[in-house]
Amino acid sequence: MYGLIGRMLAAPGRREELLDIMLDDMDFMPGCLSYVLARDPSHEDAIWITEVWDSAEDHKASLALPSVQATIAKARPLIAGFDNRYETEPLGGIGL
Amino acid sequence: MYGLIGRMLAAPGRREELLDIMLDDMDFMPGCLSYVLARDPSHEDAIWITEVWDSAEDHKASLALPSVQATIAKARPLIAGFDNRYETEPLGGIGL
Repeated sequence: MYGLIGRMLAAPGRREELLDIMLDDMDFMPGCLSYVLARDPSHEDAIWITEVWDSAEDHKASLALPSVQATIAKARPLIAGFDNRYETEPLGGIGL
Repeated sequence: MYGLIGRMLAAPGRREELLDIMLDDMDFMPGCLSYVLARDPSHEDAIWITEVWDSAEDHKASLALPSVQATIAKARPLIAGFDNRYETEPLGGIGL
């Protein structure tokens, strides 16, 4: 499996709007076992994203899906950047 | 929902042994929606743990479960410490 843990920063004051777009658009993606969006209670503009995929190739391929491209186009103006990004090798647990 | 993202450090050279204990003992915990164990490919002793719970109270209560206490007792000698810990407010996504 392939995992990502990342923190996205919304444009100042736009976090809820960005979350709404990302949550509304969330849809089946081949090879995606888990994709969780969470507020960071310590930073008013930050969103933690934790992902588990069957493989790195599945994650990469997802970025080309029309549904994902459409979400990226809507979300991009509300994204200020990313300040944490960790790749992981998930092994198992609950909920996969 | 209540989430945790944390990095645990195994005693030097003991990561696989620690992961085996934690994965073998993984069992149903009330209120636990997701609990994923992952190797950190950038640090040979580090393990990322990402958790989603119905509530902070469910997480806290889990630490008193006999099965969890038994795992902690077995794992503790192999744990060197924790160097990252982030609380989150999960909102949704895939796999919850």
